[in-house]
Amino acid sequence: MFGCLVAGRLVQAAPQQVAEDKFVFDLPDYENINHVVVFMLGTIPFPDGMGGSVYFCYPDQSGMAVWQLLGFVTNEKPSAIFKISGLKSGKGSQHPFGAMNLPQTPTVAQIGISVELLENLAQQTPVASAAVSSVDSFTEFTQKMLDNFYNFASSFAVTQAQMTPNPSEAFIPANVVLKW
Amino acid sequence: MFGCLVAGRLVQAAPQQVAEDKFVFDLPDYENINHVVVFMLGTIPFPDGMGGSVYFCYPDQSGMAVWQLLGFVTNEKPSAIFKISGLKSGKGSQHPFGAMNLPQTPTVAQIGISVELLENLAQQTPVASAAVSSVDSFTEFTQKMLDNFYNFASSFAVTQAQMTPNPSEAFIPANVVLKW
Repeated sequence: MFGCLVAGRLVQAAPQQVAEDKFVFDLPDYENINHVVVFMLGTIPFPDGMGGSVYFCYPDQSGMAVWQLLGFVTNEKPSAIFKISGLKSGKGSQHPFGAMNLPQTPTVAQIGISVELLENLAQQTPVASAAVSSVDSFTEFTQKMLDNFYNFASSFAVTQAQMTPNPSEAFIPANVVLKW
Repeated sequence: MFGCLVAGRLVQAAPQQVAEDKFVFDLPDYENINHVVVFMLGTIPFPDGMGGSVYFCYPDQSGMAVWQLLGFVTNEKPSAIFKISGLKSGKGSQHPFGAMNLPQTPTVAQIGISVELLENLAQQTPVASAAVSSVDSFTEFTQKMLDNFYNFASSFAVTQAQMTPNPSEAFIPANVVLKW
């Protein structure tokens, strides 16, 4: 479903699936990496109304995982290039991989992809220095997210009318991701 | 064998093979492209002593194809990111796609990959503005090419001893590429 490519190295197309909606690529020798490309393989799209947040994870001096949000991939923008060489001294950000305790090796970083609702992605702010292409700017992304959310919300209104009211039920059933 | 990815778009993994050793990807709407990633799929390596030169081709105002050398992919460096947004007004360079008359559409550019001897690649100079990552610098590439050429030349010395002298025969038989 996802591919990951470090500039200069072989492409990776088989991430480790660490949770139903979370995928991780290892980046060996990450100190010598400048750019990382994350892309959808084109075989399976995201379910309607969902996309992926892309995180960079590296071990700090005490071996703890530091996560930073790089950006997003969606069905409308299924690939992105990120510059990670400037991030290694940055602060961590909130992330959804908290409880996973990925093994930390001093020279190995990770790319993590979390499949989430587009409306949730639109509320997250990537580290600015990770953006490579001005065409893929965050402003444009936010506009697309707003468009997507409108489409998503519109489609939901129909679905909701057909649902049995149940306040404890999640907004989107978790098995949407499972099926996909 | 090769993949091509425009930042923000779906990956392409099926180039058009326009000659035995030449492959072409179409880039629709190229005026809105900043970065292109070219990579080997990892299934089939180059034959020993060979690599690929990567060209960007776009139509000039009169519809003629202009080719510019972006850089290289090899077994040792099987992927590269190129910035093409600054190249559209540049001059063309020598290229091996001359006789092919690829159809030129005003909004469609091409990425061309030519499989050649590493020693030939080392004599070609890409347009400097296409390099994205300082790690993938031309200096480093040239050093690798020299190393590769040394290995290549060493292996050739053995082969030559076993050959029947024939001045009209090519240095490397063309069917090396055909078999691969």
